[in-house]
Amino acid sequence: MQRALALAATPGVPLGPNPRVGCVLLSPAGDVVAEGFHRGAGAPHAEADALARAGAHARGATAVVTLEPCHHTGRTGPCSEALLAAGVARVVFAQSDPNPVAAGGAEALRTAGVDVESGLLADESARLNRAWTFGLVHQRPFVTWKFAATLDGRSAAADGTSRWVSSRPSRLDTHRLRGECDTVLVGTSTVVIDDPRLTVRDEHDLPVAHQPLRAVMGLRELPAGRRVLDDSAESLHLVTRDPAAALADLFSLGRRHVFLEGGPRLAAAFLRARLVDEVVTYVAPMLLGAGRSAVADLGIDTIAAAMRLEPTDVTVLGSGVETNVRLTMTPRHDTVVAAHPSGSASRAALREDH
Amino acid sequence: MQRALALAATPGVPLGPNPRVGCVLLSPAGDVVAEGFHRGAGAPHAEADALARAGAHARGATAVVTLEPCHHTGRTGPCSEALLAAGVARVVFAQSDPNPVAAGGAEALRTAGVDVESGLLADESARLNRAWTFGLVHQRPFVTWKFAATLDGRSAAADGTSRWVSSRPSRLDTHRLRGECDTVLVGTSTVVIDDPRLTVRDEHDLPVAHQPLRAVMGLRELPAGRRVLDDSAESLHLVTRDPAAALADLFSLGRRHVFLEGGPRLAAAFLRARLVDEVVTYVAPMLLGAGRSAVADLGIDTIAAAMRLEPTDVTVLGSGVETNVRLTMTPRHDTVVAAHPSGSASRAALREDH
Repeated sequence: MQRALALAATPGVPLGPNPRVGCVLLSPAGDVVAEGFHRGAGAPHAEADALARAGAHARGATAVVTLEPCHHTGRTGPCSEALLAAGVARVVFAQSDPNPVAAGGAEALRTAGVDVESGLLADESARLNRAWTFGLVHQRPFVTWKFAATLDGRSAAADGTSRWVSSRPSRLDTHRLRGECDTVLVGTSTVVIDDPRLTVRDEHDLPVAHQPLRAVMGLRELPAGRRVLDDSAESLHLVTRDPAAALADLFSLGRRHVFLEGGPRLAAAFLRARLVDEVVTYVAPMLLGAGRSAVADLGIDTIAAAMRLEPTDVTVLGSGVETNVRLTMTPRHDTVVAAHPSGSASRAALREDH
Repeated sequence: MQRALALAATPGVPLGPNPRVGCVLLSPAGDVVAEGFHRGAGAPHAEADALARAGAHARGATAVVTLEPCHHTGRTGPCSEALLAAGVARVVFAQSDPNPVAAGGAEALRTAGVDVESGLLADESARLNRAWTFGLVHQRPFVTWKFAATLDGRSAAADGTSRWVSSRPSRLDTHRLRGECDTVLVGTSTVVIDDPRLTVRDEHDLPVAHQPLRAVMGLRELPAGRRVLDDSAESLHLVTRDPAAALADLFSLGRRHVFLEGGPRLAAAFLRARLVDEVVTYVAPMLLGAGRSAVADLGIDTIAAAMRLEPTDVTVLGSGVETNVRLTMTPRHDTVVAAHPSGSASRAALREDH
């Protein structure tokens, strides 16, 4: 299953709205007969890919697959039937299919007499398909908001300069995270003011093979010649200021994971709309004392209404002068919604007590 | 030496401007003959403490001591002579005495025929006496600035509420760090507005036995009845706004380690005067979008002039909702002083490049 997960995680695939799936076919003696993985919408599923490579050797084999074999006919036929037709004797899968349209594969296989086992490394598989699963449930892309700020929460100095609030290790880390998303999103102001490339580049500053979509949202026209419009990756201008509308458009285009890299106002719009699902922040060990705040007004006037996040990961990047700390967090939408205090009584109780 | 260091680190001592020192006397067979440590100005040095307990058993013994035995007569006599008089055959010490007035003990002992070895765990001993050593060199107390802030650098919400930007684990951590200092310093505004106790309290919110001095600086009068003036610990009002003057007064009073817990303006005054030697910050996983900044204006207008810090420790405190991250850093005064750019050329080169 570890190998199947590694196949599923092959960099750059799948493109489009499909899950990442890997499959290994084992002979009754335990030898690898064939391997396969899903390359994206329209391409064969991982099981079909492995079966095609195995040919007649699939008979009697065990299929180890990271997601429950599908049981519906989409652009390709149901994997449950393909596995049966090939004579596979046993199926071991990790994550159950959370897609109601495609689920039912396990039961169909069992009914047909195949030995089926599920749940092995299911969490790892679910993590790999986090954005895909999220999309099935919420019908919009998963949104990761990334920002870099100083210890005192500034993303730029008073004169607008911000190179570099982030260190080289954190910039490389950002490119890695960008590459795990299918869309990078900024506002038109960022394009007008900063003219970023928004591509995923390697440690030599060269673009990698698979680039996410570069989406720009806002009502301003994009000036010609901006680097986000060059041919190094796909670009899209979403002519709206409404985060929900932008996400709906991206979802209908098959986008499942948005990396939000806009400025403080765009970030605030998404946060106020409760449309941020993950926050990745790089804390730079410096102080500015003035300058642009990392996030604009959130409509919060008292500490009890603060937007609270649940840390999931704290990582120290680099060392010495180059050190940044990356904090990854999940917004706790429950506390935010419930936390608006009703009046002076709750405020009086909030006096700081050192 | 590990045991001698543990004795030196006995909580609550020494009071006053003396170093922490521990001493273990070992018989020629390697058995512990006696132990001692220094309890503060006026009390016997660690060696004398151990020698008094050993009596005649000190003859022929090895003295393991965390600091080079002193060679001067202050309120107590020179330890070098006491060790010789007791017939100690061998001395192993960690840190060499950085105090020019008291140094020379090792040489005097060697001249008198004692076998002397130095440097064992010297770094650990130096760390234990960091503030004391700093004071000898700089003739002012070591300053640790502590602040808690949200991810977007706010220390309070728009309405002034700030309970709790810090989590319970980080508050307990703050009390532990306070207890390692001999002085807690705030501004008069903090006393007027927040009325903090500024005592060191344990996990049951009870004051510990040894309390640092509670110093308040600023020109405003302290209103009667403020908790900082109660009898749970010593208090002092420094009637000045000048960080250097306040530190000079504290130094002359024997204070060697100041825990700066004031608001954004007091912190900015110390930072601008380059009088912060260590920064401890608790990053709370929340966003406010508005409210009081953790630090006031530092006179920095461009990113190249940002005050840079060198992280020395990143610690995750608590878990889940209670998680805060503590970052400990040393300001890099070199970069701050050298970093002011001279004009538009350097600014043009500072364009952000995503």
